[in-house]
This record gives sequence, structure tokens and C-alpha cells, in this order.
Amino acid sequence: MPQSSLINRRIVLAARPHGEPADSDFRLETGEVPQPGPGQVLLRTVYLSLDPYMRGRMSDAPSYAEPVQVGQPMVGGTVTRVEASNHPQYQPGEWVLAQSGWQDYAVSDGTGLVRLGANPQHPSYSLGVLGMPGFTGYMGLLDIGQPKAGETVVVAAASGAVGAVVGQIAKIHGCKVVGIAGGPDKCRYVVDELGFDECLDHKAPDLPGRLARAVPQGIDVYFENVGGAVFDAVLPLLNPRARVPVCGLISAYNATSQPEGPDRLALLMRTILTKRLKMQGFIIFNEYAHRYGEFREAMEGLIKEGRIKYREDVVDGLENAPRGLIGLLKGENAGKRIVRVGPDERSAT
Amino acid sequence: MPQSSLINRRIVLAARPHGEPADSDFRLETGEVPQPGPGQVLLRTVYLSLDPYMRGRMSDAPSYAEPVQVGQPMVGGTVTRVEASNHPQYQPGEWVLAQSGWQDYAVSDGTGLVRLGANPQHPSYSLGVLGMPGFTGYMGLLDIGQPKAGETVVVAAASGAVGAVVGQIAKIHGCKVVGIAGGPDKCRYVVDELGFDECLDHKAPDLPGRLARAVPQGIDVYFENVGGAVFDAVLPLLNPRARVPVCGLISAYNATSQPEGPDRLALLMRTILTKRLKMQGFIIFNEYAHRYGEFREAMEGLIKEGRIKYREDVVDGLENAPRGLIGLLKGENAGKRIVRVGPDERSAT
Repeated sequence: MPQSSLINRRIVLAARPHGEPADSDFRLETGEVPQPGPGQVLLRTVYLSLDPYMRGRMSDAPSYAEPVQVGQPMVGGTVTRVEASNHPQYQPGEWVLAQSGWQDYAVSDGTGLVRLGANPQHPSYSLGVLGMPGFTGYMGLLDIGQPKAGETVVVAAASGAVGAVVGQIAKIHGCKVVGIAGGPDKCRYVVDELGFDECLDHKAPDLPGRLARAVPQGIDVYFENVGGAVFDAVLPLLNPRARVPVCGLISAYNATSQPEGPDRLALLMRTILTKRLKMQGFIIFNEYAHRYGEFREAMEGLIKEGRIKYREDVVDGLENAPRGLIGLLKGENAGKRIVRVGPDERSAT
Repeated sequence: MPQSSLINRRIVLAARPHGEPADSDFRLETGEVPQPGPGQVLLRTVYLSLDPYMRGRMSDAPSYAEPVQVGQPMVGGTVTRVEASNHPQYQPGEWVLAQSGWQDYAVSDGTGLVRLGANPQHPSYSLGVLGMPGFTGYMGLLDIGQPKAGETVVVAAASGAVGAVVGQIAKIHGCKVVGIAGGPDKCRYVVDELGFDECLDHKAPDLPGRLARAVPQGIDVYFENVGGAVFDAVLPLLNPRARVPVCGLISAYNATSQPEGPDRLALLMRTILTKRLKMQGFIIFNEYAHRYGEFREAMEGLIKEGRIKYREDVVDGLENAPRGLIGLLKGENAGKRIVRVGPDERSAT
């Protein structure tokens, strides 16, 4: 069932997953297309972003954001077009970045919307390299990581939407950059296309040994977005005064219980002390919203100059979004994963 | 055997402790008083500082500083007087802050010495409130902790040399301050003398519940210098964007193995992420040596105005230094623990 102008499809959270999400945790529902009230716009979804943080919203464990309620649509960033407007600042046909979630249509009073103009060159980029993931990588690396020329930066999930930006920006700042990614194809992409100095396959044996050999000068910045075995390999290689921006922990998102002991919490504390590490968590639009304009201008310039490469992995159709997210959490995507929900131009239906 | 002008007593590391240090890990040796060569001064120890970090130097586990070698004198900060000088900048009788360790006499070429003048008012304060511990508390709180008026600051080892400064400075900055200390006497001192808003006895039952009730607004800054059960109680109460300066982990210094599981390393990482915490380790004279003058001037002023209280716990005689350190690691001190090694004035012997 493709997008139509008569029906609003939406994918709701059917059940809270235990561990890895399953198809049965999602449900496709249909309903009427909502009508914009006074001061509201009607938005039609063209692209939906799929991101690892969405796994967190499916759980009711305490986190930095409210969970999705069972029976409610999944949340998510979207690139949309204005279909109808009772809002003085929005005209039909405009492209708008929104948070309208896993559905065809949504109404908005304008809060939190970002205008992309009448004819943006790459509208979907605002979900990736120019949006939340790119902003996360850029600001986390530069503001918390503070990389200096000649330092060694290690990036996990290096072929992902965040990691690809971190590594390329670190290269631009004169760092040695080692990526970690899952499988030889991704590693080849990271080195050949993105220009990292090296990339290690975390699925191959002896990651700790290979990483140690790849960073003979130790690690000055580790951009943390996966956790787990990669962090375990990184920790003993961190240099004194290393910086660890923490923006995600994808390896743990499906965990159902704490791993068995020994309890290494004290070991981590001891390492923070003896190596004088700085570890800092951040949620990009909470901590840095006021710097989005500065980022966007810089990043648009770098893309235009060909200094930042970007690749999308497009899932076709809203009905395939659940499978798309499940696969993303397993690392099966090649580049920033987005869903093509509807056509650029409104269909005649 | 008191200090004499003819013999140099020194306490050496006899064996590396396994767990808690024992008397047998130390040995008192005697030898000749060293003679200063060209450009050197002979220093006589008046006070020796005892500090928790010394436990770390007794081990050969990797740390931020070289371990003491077995058979060599224990390291430590000292307040000394110049007994003889072949150095143009030092005159006999001057008071000097040094790192001459657990012994009566040492020679120095001047490296790392700090002059305290001919007649300092409280020479021993340079080992405590005006020295490494005070500087640690002051700079760690203000530079890493960044406390704002109205925020809640929690300080462990609140009656100790570092904790007492942290809490008093936080009060001066308009914070609500909750201390944690071992036993009712220390807690009374922390509230009645040091002026903390509250102090919790970590030896009494249900620290997590009592702490939660003491910080109804959550915790914005936790000054970490003990680790272990106190940190476990603090972690769930940290507010979003809380800051955790880490300057010590006294509870773990005697640990011989990692605690049993579950492994909470991933839990800590998750908390850093979801609460956007900043945790940062620091070793005061590594990270902040260039700001010692600024600190000293500010702190001398605050002491003079009576806004900072300070208490010393004096152990008498170098031969009692081992017992003094063993007790310090158990928290039996009341205030900054120092050893009176020799008299202010050189004896006639």
C-alpha cells in the first residue's frame, strides 16, 4: 500500500520489546488524514530517519526522553512537505524538517520545525550529514573531543551516519583516524571512500591486539557510540588526558540484563582517575541546539567542496520501517539509513 | 629515637602490600646525614604529610606516577628547614615545602621546592589546606565541578583534608552541601564546624535511602574521592548534566581483586549517556600547577577572614608514620593527618 492522499498510515508500538525488537512489536494502522486547525500546517512525510536511539524510546527504562507509549506512533525525524497551511509562515509545497514520526501525515503548530526551502538540493541530507547524526558527530568531536593535529582519534561504527562524520572531520583537523566497523565491505568504504587512515573489522578475531597495533601512540580521542567489546578494547589504550564523548551505546540497546561479573565499574573509575580522562555524555539537540546554524553552514561548505563524503541506505516504503530499524541495530546498513515514505511530489491519488 | 643532627632515619618500603598495608611492609633504617654538594641544600624534615595516594605508590600496578621501589624511602610532601646551603637562593633556617619523603634529611638542587619564608605563620598548612589537598578540593570543585548557586553538591570523605575544602568552598558559592563521613563525631564536625548543610554517616544503615532524602533536588556536583558504596548511592541521584570531578578512590586502594558481578561498566556508560554526565579525573599538580599561585592567594584570604576552617590530626614521630598511614586508609583520622618528624627549631644534639 503506497502513500495516498486519503489515508494516514502509521506504525505504532505494539509491544515493548524484550531484547532485540521483533516484527510483532510494531503494528501498521490506518486512519483518516488529520485536518490542520487554525494556526496549524498539515505535513506529508517524504523521508523518515531510522536511528539507533529509537530502540531506547521503545523501552520504559528511565532515559533522557519519554518512552513511546504502547499504541502510539513511533517517534522519528522526518523530511516533509507542507500539504495545507493555516499558519502564516508556511506555504503549501515547502520542504520542512520535522519530528512527525512513523506516519504519512501529521499536523503541527510550527513548534520545532525547520524550513528547508522550496527546492532543497538534497532534502534527505537533513536527516543525516546535515541533521542530527552529522551534528552529533561534528559537535561531539570538536567541542568535547577537542582533537589536536597529530593526535590519534578512534571512531566506532565508522561507516555509520555519526562515525563517518567524526572521522572525516578529525582528518580535516590533522588527526590520525582509525575506524572500527563490522565487516570487510564497510571497512573498505571507510578507508577508500571516507579517507580514514585505517579501519578494523570488529567481527574478525583479536580486536584488542589489532587495535593496539593500529594506535602505537595510544588513543587521544575515542568517540563512543557503540560500547561493549569495542570500548573494552579501547580503554587500556587511552592516553593520559584522553577525551571520550559519549553519544550512544548501540551494542547495549538490546541488552536485557547486566553482563556477568567481575564488576568493572571500579576499574573504569580507577582508569578515569589515573589517566585523568574526561568522559562526557551529550544529546545533541539538548546540549547544542543553539549551535545548529553554525554547524549547518560549516558542513554545507565542506560537502560542497567535496571534503565530506556521505552515503545513504534507503529503505523503500513505510511498511518496511520496522525491518529497517531491526536491521540497523544489527549493523546491516551501509550508510545513513532512511525510509522513503512517499514521493517528492504529491501523487494524483 | 627522636630526630638528631647525626643520624638520618628513613622509612623504606620493605614489601609491596597485598590489600591493606601492614607494619611489616615498612622498615625503619638509619644512615648518615647526607652532605649537600655544590649548588645543593640540606633539608631537615619538620612535618611529613600522610595522604591516601601513598597507598598507590606502594603498588606496582600502572598508575599516573612511578611506584616506590622496594628498599627505597616512601615518598611524601614535607615541610622542611634549610640546614645548610650551597645554593645561592637558599639561606639556612628558611622554611621550604619539599617532596623529600619519609626521612629526616634530604639534599636537593632546588627543583620543585617552594619557599615558605623565614617565619611562616602555619608552616604545616602548606601540606593541607594551602597545599596539595586544599588545591585539589578548590580547583577540582571550581574548574571541573562548575558549581552554581542553588545547586546541590555532595562530598564524600567530608571531614578529610580535601572534602572539607570542597564543601566549604561550595557553601561560599551558594550551594546546598551534603557531606558523607564515617561516624557521628566526624559528621558533627562537618555540620557544626565546617558549616555543611547536612552530613550522612556512611557506617549507618541505608546510605542510599538517607542520601535520597537529603537531596530532594538531586545532585549537581559529586566530588569523588572515595568510590565504592558511596558512589553506588550517588549514581542514581545525579541530575542531568551533573559534573563528577574524580580525584581519588580511597575505598578501592586496598582492593586485591575486582568485585564480583554483575558487571556494571555498561550501566555507568549508559548513565553517562542518558544523564549527559561529565566525569573527569585530575591529578592536581599535573593539570593545574600553573594555577597554584592564584589558589594560594585566594585560600590565604579566606582563612584570614575565618571563612575556611581547618583541622590537623598530628601523629608524633617519624617511627609512627606507617601506623598513621594505615589508619588514614581506614578513615581513623580527624582532619588532615600529618607527622611531626622533628621540632621547629633544630635541637642542640
